[in-house]
Amino acid sequence: MSRIVIALGGNALGDTAREQQSRIEKAAPALVGLIKQGHEIIISHGNGPQVGMIKLAFDKASETDPSIDDLELPECTAMSQGYIGFHLQKGLYRQLRREGMPWHVATVITQMEVDARDPAFQNPTKPIGVFYTREQAQALSREHPEMVFREDAGRGWRQVVASPLPRDIVEKDSILNLLDDEFIVIACGGGGIPVVKDKEGNYTSVPAVIDKDFASAKLAEMVDADYLFILTAVDRVAIDYGKPQQRELEKMSVKEARRYAGEGHFAPGSMLPKIQAAVAFAESKKGRRAIIASLEKAPLAMRGESGTEIYLN
Amino acid sequence: MSRIVIALGGNALGDTAREQQSRIEKAAPALVGLIKQGHEIIISHGNGPQVGMIKLAFDKASETDPSIDDLELPECTAMSQGYIGFHLQKGLYRQLRREGMPWHVATVITQMEVDARDPAFQNPTKPIGVFYTREQAQALSREHPEMVFREDAGRGWRQVVASPLPRDIVEKDSILNLLDDEFIVIACGGGGIPVVKDKEGNYTSVPAVIDKDFASAKLAEMVDADYLFILTAVDRVAIDYGKPQQRELEKMSVKEARRYAGEGHFAPGSMLPKIQAAVAFAESKKGRRAIIASLEKAPLAMRGESGTEIYLN
Repeated sequence: MSRIVIALGGNALGDTAREQQSRIEKAAPALVGLIKQGHEIIISHGNGPQVGMIKLAFDKASETDPSIDDLELPECTAMSQGYIGFHLQKGLYRQLRREGMPWHVATVITQMEVDARDPAFQNPTKPIGVFYTREQAQALSREHPEMVFREDAGRGWRQVVASPLPRDIVEKDSILNLLDDEFIVIACGGGGIPVVKDKEGNYTSVPAVIDKDFASAKLAEMVDADYLFILTAVDRVAIDYGKPQQRELEKMSVKEARRYAGEGHFAPGSMLPKIQAAVAFAESKKGRRAIIASLEKAPLAMRGESGTEIYLN
Repeated sequence: MSRIVIALGGNALGDTAREQQSRIEKAAPALVGLIKQGHEIIISHGNGPQVGMIKLAFDKASETDPSIDDLELPECTAMSQGYIGFHLQKGLYRQLRREGMPWHVATVITQMEVDARDPAFQNPTKPIGVFYTREQAQALSREHPEMVFREDAGRGWRQVVASPLPRDIVEKDSILNLLDDEFIVIACGGGGIPVVKDKEGNYTSVPAVIDKDFASAKLAEMVDADYLFILTAVDRVAIDYGKPQQRELEKMSVKEARRYAGEGHFAPGSMLPKIQAAVAFAESKKGRRAIIASLEKAPLAMRGESGTEIYLN
């Protein structure tokens, strides 16, 4: 039996509650499929579109209604963990019962410690929320000068916020305590709620979003997982992506991954953080492997029949 | 050592993130004080103002921005569990560290099963969200015919939704599994996310809000608690409340509680559900006691020096 941490993309969960529920229902057989193969799974997930929607809803509503609070990003991330965790619990429970498996599903609201001196705070790079046209982004940026927008991998313009590196999971003992027999744990949603530790050892939240792939790699290290599965929209990592000579990779050593990344094969904010997180996990201990695959083909990827495996050479 | 389930009022948590954080910091010494007396605590909380704010923010924002989803109440409740749980975790952790106690705090996103045939669905009674004047309520009700408004204990007008009785906690095994040494569990926030079970044994969420006092009584029964603490704004339950002959009660038998309730001493939507939940718990097993007290005086109430104890006669 292997222990697998699964990182689900926030984009893969869709833009509305209805979409999210139906995408999770479609994903559930693949996730439960890994359990049926005899493995233990821990799920983390992104929250880019969701936290962006929550922040935007409160920003817009608080402009016209003074009774509504103008919420900060950490509170919005906490909300997104509840919102996405609830749907994952419901969808996985449904599939488990369908398979006659008496497993339980638990979401742990997770804070992630980051370093207050992380250079990311000076250079926001993490896209959140909906896509805008260049003109919309310019208009919003004039209206809210503290908001920064960037072009996102050819898909449009999005707001970007600081994305510091995860250092420590505040609720790691809760997660480990739940990892009992027949429990699926959902944790580190949206990369975790970013907090910094002060001199007294107390945590204060900071307006940032932690990359869910880096957070998942940290989670996988902390629970001593054998595999980190980064599930996304494509079946395999490709080099020369989108070009005539595009080539999909079945395996990639940490060394090769670094070289391809250096050559600019992977889009920042999209495939690049997945590769970096995969490398960080594969390097963290001998025998650990990261697999980047599509959600539907996760059970095939576990048997080496799909996905790209990143291993320490 | 006793096991205590603590029900915190949503109103006691304030209306904004800043208020919530500071109220929780003020409440933390009393809650951790119970642990220092040698007891184990499990915390549940209301979410009336918070879920109302979340629903209103999405309602308002979705009117002007089609990219924002018009969220249903169950999703808003899930969000409120993440939002309030995060602040409780942070505030309790701070107090625990201040006291040199290496305890952990975990929030479990909780679904609560209700009966689809519960008569509450035909008769909405549970107040959520902000207070309105009569005129504001009438205007909103013209604009949104599906919304129902009622006058709330002299404090203004509020939206009311169906409040079915809690039947079963879907995540009860997760809660019990976490109830290990040195763990504070936060569960059943906002009464839990209301779900009904279909013929196949699957859960579907329903647009309702479960009373947090009834949910806390159910939680206290399920974890086999010795005490149910219902913490509110007053030190003790009073009969003839607000009248010259007002009398505060130190103890009240289940029989007396029923008689006073029948005589109309307790306000519906305010003290009445607390009394009913206290009675349900005290009656559920011999030796179980419910205590209605103020948040600050919870440790005093544990020693019988404040609060009203409800016991089976």
